[in-house]
Amino acid sequence: MRIGVIGTNSCSKEIGRLAYEVGREIAQRGGSLICGGLGGVMEQACAGAKSAGGLTIGILPGLSASEANHYVDIPIVTGMGYARNVIVALSSQAIIAVSGRYGTLSEIAYALNFGKPVIGLRTWKLEQADYELPPIIGVTTASEAVEAAYKHGN
Amino acid sequence: MRIGVIGTNSCSKEIGRLAYEVGREIAQRGGSLICGGLGGVMEQACAGAKSAGGLTIGILPGLSASEANHYVDIPIVTGMGYARNVIVALSSQAIIAVSGRYGTLSEIAYALNFGKPVIGLRTWKLEQADYELPPIIGVTTASEAVEAAYKHGN
Amino acid sequence: MRIGVIGTNSCSKEIGRLAYEVGREIAQRGGSLICGGLGGVMEQACAGAKSAGGLTIGILPGLSASEANHYVDIPIVTGMGYARNVIVALSSQAIIAVSGRYGTLSEIAYALNFGKPVIGLRTWKLEQADYELPPIIGVTTASEAVEAAYKHGN
Amino acid sequence: MRIGVIGTNSCSKEIGRLAYEVGREIAQRGGSLICGGLGGVMEQACAGAKSAGGLTIGILPGLSASEANHYVDIPIVTGMGYARNVIVALSSQAIIAVSGRYGTLSEIAYALNFGKPVIGLRTWKLEQADYELPPIIGVTTASEAVEAAYKHGN
Repeated sequence: MRIGVIGTNSCSKEIGRLAYEVGREIAQRGGSLICGGLGGVMEQACAGAKSAGGLTIGILPGLSASEANHYVDIPIVTGMGYARNVIVALSSQAIIAVSGRYGTLSEIAYALNFGKPVIGLRTWKLEQADYELPPIIGVTTASEAVEAAYKHGN
Repeated sequence: MRIGVIGTNSCSKEIGRLAYEVGREIAQRGGSLICGGLGGVMEQACAGAKSAGGLTIGILPGLSASEANHYVDIPIVTGMGYARNVIVALSSQAIIAVSGRYGTLSEIAYALNFGKPVIGLRTWKLEQADYELPPIIGVTTASEAVEAAYKHGN
Repeated sequence: MRIGVIGTNSCSKEIGRLAYEVGREIAQRGGSLICGGLGGVMEQACAGAKSAGGLTIGILPGLSASEANHYVDIPIVTGMGYARNVIVALSSQAIIAVSGRYGTLSEIAYALNFGKPVIGLRTWKLEQADYELPPIIGVTTASEAVEAAYKHGN
Repeated sequence: MRIGVIGTNSCSKEIGRLAYEVGREIAQRGGSLICGGLGGVMEQACAGAKSAGGLTIGILPGLSASEANHYVDIPIVTGMGYARNVIVALSSQAIIAVSGRYGTLSEIAYALNFGKPVIGLRTWKLEQADYELPPIIGVTTASEAVEAAYKHGN
């Protein structure tokens, strides 16, 4: 199971701990972690996954593998900037959003657009009255998030 | 002024009329219209712009200019699927969202991420408690939308 | 007719003159010019097209329309770096390569891969013994190049 | 060491054997194999790598991991069509081209443009008189190719 973890490039300690926990739980269940490969939530999630011996894949925006955080096993170098967000969404079988700003929201939107389940931890609340659309699945702990990702992942 | 108009590939008559009106107002003020080049909101906005002699640019997802709606003057053929949404956001000096589903939301998120103003007509409501972020500027008529785009566009 | 002109971001006077002439001939025949929007061959081709009142479209690699050369009418801002070379190839009905380095070669390869005719002025010579493939159409003057683009463009 | 192997989506038995051998040698030396994830040269190279217990990464053009060949361990789903060729070039520390058509040539051009060494087995011959440019390093056996990739890879 390939699970994406998305969030900002820098984050508070509290959100970082949550991301670390998510990464660790993914690895404990034998999943691979996909992320944007940079700092903040991405780095903490990768660190958590490595603490449990998991595999981590970083889909990088820039031109060099050296921009990956230290816990990325497999750097994918896109050179495409934020367009790489599509790839994070498409390559994951489920996505866990940990808080996040507008970059994260673009990934949430892509994932839901492509029919991927999105599990939310302290993340965006979305409402669009005109259409009935698949929602973000809200949870409150890292372990609930990973459990939901395994349950709904495709 | 290059103004992006974003929304779904098929839409109700009511939303279509709104998009048409937005396109017409953009052209009446001398602006160029940028969109995803397909049907629904994109087609109606282009039709509106052409009714007032405007210039329309369609950033297409597929491999052929022939997928553009009939009102696109300049087809840009990306072959990149939904990754082209980044280009709509970056090429516009302001974005007007007319309703919309998750594809539209990805464009809204990209635009706000890149510091572009987003004007909303019957579109997404967004909330993220962790951060103070630039909001969608909500308006209720096409003419208010275009006025706001001109006021805030960069 | 939308004709792509491709080449390096800086160039000798001689190659620049050739690119200028190509741009001017395209505009004189009523064509639109598509290019990567930057300097060198791209800038000279745009300048030539504007000297004859043509329309110029620049598919830019970076995040800002301000990187376009002064002769670009319609900046398309991709934020995708060299991945935008695909878009230049796909959006053109024929491509004219004026000299060029490896970036230009990637566009030539994409264009031929997508079945677009490529006209070459002082550009790459290619040979691959294993396959019968459509060749670059070699010409020696700007006016021959544009004539071939009109003849073979699809 | 991450080594890219590039070539066509279908190929002759002879070229397939060469690709298989290249994949096997990469894995025997402990390298990871990156490719476009589809059939032909890509599939044979992945099969060779798996025969020696290597790790294989497929950068896919479409929207689903299911288009990967059976020997891909890590499918990266881009949804970007041929624009994914940039990612193969950027993610590899060296590229081995086995024969190939225009898609392969676009990857060769990107790799050389980005300063990546390209090792050629029965592949394109390139010539551009105007510039002094880094050449394809021509070799004749799979084991020479992998040795050169290790020697020149960055």
